[in-house]
Amino acid sequence: MSALLESYAAGRWFRAADDGEPLLDAATGEEVARISSRGLDVAAMVGHARDTGGPAVRALTFHERAALLKSLAKHLLERKEELYALSVRTGATARDTAVDVDGGIGTLFSYGSKGVRELPNDTVVLDGGLERLGKGGTFAGQHLYTSRPGVAVQINAFNFPVWGMLEKLAPAFLAGLPTIVKPASQTAYLTELAVRQIIESGILPEGTLQLLAGSAGGLLDELTIQDSVAFTGSAHTAGILRRHPNVLDDGVALNVEADSLNCSILGPDVRPDDPEFDLFVKGVVTEMTVKAGQKCTAIRRVLVPAALAGQVVDALADRLGKVSVGDPRNPDVRMGALASLGQREEVRKAVEALLASAEVVFGDPKGAGLLDGDPERGAFMTPLVLRARPGAVEPHDVEPFGPVSTVIGYDGLDEAVALAARGRGSLVASVATHDPAVARSVVLGLAPWHGRVLVLDRDDAKESTGHGSPLPVLVHGGPGRAGGGEELGGIRGVLHHMQRTAVQASPDQLTAITGRWTTGSARAESGVHPFRKSLAELRIGDTIASAPRTVSLADIDHFAEFTGDTFYAHTDPEAAARNPLFGGIVAHGYLVVSLAAGLFVDPAPGPVLANFGVDSLRFLTPVKAGDTIAVTLTVKQITPRSNADYGEVRWDAVVTNQEDQPVATYDVLTLVAKTWDAR
Amino acid sequence: MSALLESYAAGRWFRAADDGEPLLDAATGEEVARISSRGLDVAAMVGHARDTGGPAVRALTFHERAALLKSLAKHLLERKEELYALSVRTGATARDTAVDVDGGIGTLFSYGSKGVRELPNDTVVLDGGLERLGKGGTFAGQHLYTSRPGVAVQINAFNFPVWGMLEKLAPAFLAGLPTIVKPASQTAYLTELAVRQIIESGILPEGTLQLLAGSAGGLLDELTIQDSVAFTGSAHTAGILRRHPNVLDDGVALNVEADSLNCSILGPDVRPDDPEFDLFVKGVVTEMTVKAGQKCTAIRRVLVPAALAGQVVDALADRLGKVSVGDPRNPDVRMGALASLGQREEVRKAVEALLASAEVVFGDPKGAGLLDGDPERGAFMTPLVLRARPGAVEPHDVEPFGPVSTVIGYDGLDEAVALAARGRGSLVASVATHDPAVARSVVLGLAPWHGRVLVLDRDDAKESTGHGSPLPVLVHGGPGRAGGGEELGGIRGVLHHMQRTAVQASPDQLTAITGRWTTGSARAESGVHPFRKSLAELRIGDTIASAPRTVSLADIDHFAEFTGDTFYAHTDPEAAARNPLFGGIVAHGYLVVSLAAGLFVDPAPGPVLANFGVDSLRFLTPVKAGDTIAVTLTVKQITPRSNADYGEVRWDAVVTNQEDQPVATYDVLTLVAKTWDAR
Repeated sequence: MSALLESYAAGRWFRAADDGEPLLDAATGEEVARISSRGLDVAAMVGHARDTGGPAVRALTFHERAALLKSLAKHLLERKEELYALSVRTGATARDTAVDVDGGIGTLFSYGSKGVRELPNDTVVLDGGLERLGKGGTFAGQHLYTSRPGVAVQINAFNFPVWGMLEKLAPAFLAGLPTIVKPASQTAYLTELAVRQIIESGILPEGTLQLLAGSAGGLLDELTIQDSVAFTGSAHTAGILRRHPNVLDDGVALNVEADSLNCSILGPDVRPDDPEFDLFVKGVVTEMTVKAGQKCTAIRRVLVPAALAGQVVDALADRLGKVSVGDPRNPDVRMGALASLGQREEVRKAVEALLASAEVVFGDPKGAGLLDGDPERGAFMTPLVLRARPGAVEPHDVEPFGPVSTVIGYDGLDEAVALAARGRGSLVASVATHDPAVARSVVLGLAPWHGRVLVLDRDDAKESTGHGSPLPVLVHGGPGRAGGGEELGGIRGVLHHMQRTAVQASPDQLTAITGRWTTGSARAESGVHPFRKSLAELRIGDTIASAPRTVSLADIDHFAEFTGDTFYAHTDPEAAARNPLFGGIVAHGYLVVSLAAGLFVDPAPGPVLANFGVDSLRFLTPVKAGDTIAVTLTVKQITPRSNADYGEVRWDAVVTNQEDQPVATYDVLTLVAKTWDAR
Repeated sequence: MSALLESYAAGRWFRAADDGEPLLDAATGEEVARISSRGLDVAAMVGHARDTGGPAVRALTFHERAALLKSLAKHLLERKEELYALSVRTGATARDTAVDVDGGIGTLFSYGSKGVRELPNDTVVLDGGLERLGKGGTFAGQHLYTSRPGVAVQINAFNFPVWGMLEKLAPAFLAGLPTIVKPASQTAYLTELAVRQIIESGILPEGTLQLLAGSAGGLLDELTIQDSVAFTGSAHTAGILRRHPNVLDDGVALNVEADSLNCSILGPDVRPDDPEFDLFVKGVVTEMTVKAGQKCTAIRRVLVPAALAGQVVDALADRLGKVSVGDPRNPDVRMGALASLGQREEVRKAVEALLASAEVVFGDPKGAGLLDGDPERGAFMTPLVLRARPGAVEPHDVEPFGPVSTVIGYDGLDEAVALAARGRGSLVASVATHDPAVARSVVLGLAPWHGRVLVLDRDDAKESTGHGSPLPVLVHGGPGRAGGGEELGGIRGVLHHMQRTAVQASPDQLTAITGRWTTGSARAESGVHPFRKSLAELRIGDTIASAPRTVSLADIDHFAEFTGDTFYAHTDPEAAARNPLFGGIVAHGYLVVSLAAGLFVDPAPGPVLANFGVDSLRFLTPVKAGDTIAVTLTVKQITPRSNADYGEVRWDAVVTNQEDQPVATYDVLTLVAKTWDAR
């Protein structure tokens, strides 16, 4: 008997008391492992996540969490051969495994990188700008995201045992949540191996990742308001989860990614000899054959101009005829097995249903023609193309989770979009077109029904990641039948796990709460110019209020001549007088900010290394010749970089005139050394 | 018999076939109106919204929709006396009605304003920046929000018959959705009057607002994937809605705002003679008495340091003793009636439940002591303060929807936060403190459990809008028991109604789809400088590629002297050489952008009126003496202003050096006349 998979629960590896159920190799039918969760204390797992894992991850800043994800990615990358070797037992070819294993590791790298670049080195995220709530400026609102003191449970599908775990783990971990992973049994041995690699590394704080191998009975009963479940799988199971009382009445958040009848549309502008025709056909074939079509994002419906349907079928047949199917251990095999004989049975049933309104135009429903492998013990299935009869219903409702697609003819763009919408909400759609008007019309028509839309043409084909690939930086999910959930999308997937709250307070209190200087709150002017302070010495609110400087007409004239910016509003009194906004000569905006820098800069070498940018510069009041300006510069945000001996300082800059009117407001971005000794 | 309320359905006023149920004046018990929806064709209403209202609103840009909301606000403002006169029959005082009527109109004004300032003059909203998906730049991703071709159904509570409708209508309308309003029967006559005023105005396109007066039987059965329901009311009814099959299995989005045991916390730093003590007590009394405590956001739990509980009770009793209760027609009455005798019965039952672990410390549960009004026919109730016994459970679970609050002692900040969390998710919490450390600790502790947190102190008290007031610019909603929904929050409430989709395409296709110039897509250089083109003539992608200019050491020296920006990196070769980022003298960033303006500006009077700002300026490569720079300026976005004869043009600016490396990238913001004749 093969080994029993273990769960990683409450800080130790747990082995069930019974022998468990066998899990079979998809291609050979041999037993790979056994699985059982009998005797597992799921309440203790939830408690461990809440009491140990949650506090541990929330003690870290976003940048520290991101650095751990990056380390983890490197750790798994070094061990990926081990994962590849085991992955073949799921029926996956090397190409399939790359999607799962490399895709998962790539997601960790992506979040490791985004977490540093797009989140603060803090534990709270500000959302949007300050909302002034009173004319006097003493009462204001700021939205912020905080981490929930809860647990992220993930319940995954069998088709991506590694990616499925990592794509949910990365954003949850960044958001400050401990995770409990419940993989689908069929391929849980691969998830278990990946979890072993992660736990052995010691990179993630204890309690932030636990594995439940086997049945999840009772897990949802332990969850409450601050907890969430991310589910990928069938609409049927999603319906069961949605009906759990803790979801219905106790505020457990449920994010679902379920059935999806994704379509790909051949644009009406495309002729058979256009490059887009081949790209389209190639895309469909790829989606039918990668993972033997067992992808939530695969193309189930092939929408083509009715007049071209025959040619599309021929081209598909031509390419699919060259796809060798069999045991993925054979290097000549291009498409492996389905995950199990049970899955094959499901697909065959779906095909049966589809045949009510479609006919087979390529392939053998019985699945003859393997390159090698035992068709009885291995869950092999050869690709199948159906063609829908006019008015067909089933192709829009039945999802064959295997290498099966249905060609459907359309007449005009509106019908193409309407047919796509008959999927009642999908994860992704694609359209092959080189016509910008077609692209705009189709994409805007499809968008309300889809989480992702891909436009394929000769320009992007070479770099395109394809119809079926969710990317960590783009949202993954879809409305309606696709479950209504949303994952990934870079930082969107992190914020999704956090609570958004509007905080109302005085500016001083908002500064204290957010750790970021708020307009209207106290400024600290000491005798020391803040440019003389290192990152370690600088404090939020440190301020330099400059001396005044009068801007003369000669300054404006000179600046125009020197820079070449002789725009009439700066140089021609009569034309400037006719300008409806100025009514006379005004100083250049660039002159104002240049003079302001001259007023606030402390010139001698010091901890301020560089000005690397300016944000949100607005010119509010024109500066006329003779006006006197001054600038106030205040430390707004301090972001140490963990991989450098300096960090970023964001300064609030306000330039005012002699009447104390704001002339310009902006943020100045500088790099400041962490420490500084006068050298 | 009084008048039967009518529904506004499918373009006409519908009157039920039967006599309906009577609706009684809250204070006098007299019949105000009758209500019935017998015979109403709800399927036709949904069809009318889908086929007429939806297309009509989606044919408008966000700015056009916003302008209609503003017109509507003005229209209702002129008719508010009529609403006030009828509102008294709900038991509301003039102060109560201001919250409902003026609050609702204010929400329209707020969305009218935000819609123009924060949304594009378009029908699609871009979300976040461009995601490069390939090294060559030929494949990129852009998230965007599109309008759903669905219907927004709102099911409202009885306590805000006007605000409740308008706060849901405004964001839905901006999002491009037609609305069907289903008010609570008890106060539906006031909603009906407001809807009559709106329909009579003819301001909103037909089909964008319909009214269902009476029972909503069958309405949810008509909804599907692209539709949504926003519900405010009891957790019990929310549970019924959540169990509807179209919600569970057919993708109807449900946003719930339900029960909420909001708390207010007196900070441990506050002494009885501090201003925050009085502010706290005043806040609790206000929340208990406005709308007779019938607000989802009212303070049910008063958390105070245990040692101060007696003094807080005394101070509450002192203020509450001066609150006169009775018929709101009497100008001396400060607190009116509950909405109905039935509601009073509910509150009395809740008090009964609370008494299991609390005792009455102020007020008479029987409700004696009215200034005027018939205590049998009018739903009057006098304020009641309870004090929880140690370990009390009920005050955290039972919501008395009337003028009732429970004082609960706490010991230390951690316990205060833990007690607040026992509400299991609330709409709002407040804390009175002048200590920034207390504010930070309490707010970050409360945030995951709340949609809004208010910090009250001497600094913001004067302008504070108070614990109980949701504001259009801040999110309203809360996790867990509060329903898990989110409304308002400015544009957040609009996007909530739209579908977010990731679009992957070549830059050229992204430009066509989004209507905004995408980095990497084609630039159009014609013989005409784009500064010579009016808004009507300018096209996305119009470009000026400037002549080159060499930046000399003399330029840098001169700029330093002229502006006073003598930072060592521009002036001191030896010190600059030691700078880890530059390694020698570099040009000022402000010099680079000033020279760039000199290179791209077309000086003669023309349609470009002003440069009003710069966004996202980043200095990417240092410019050294002798480097030669050039700038490319491309029209990125064109936003006509509907109330001016000019609009905004956002230009993409890229400054490069002689090796074609990017030196600086930024957006230049200008105002450009809609038309221009050379004068």
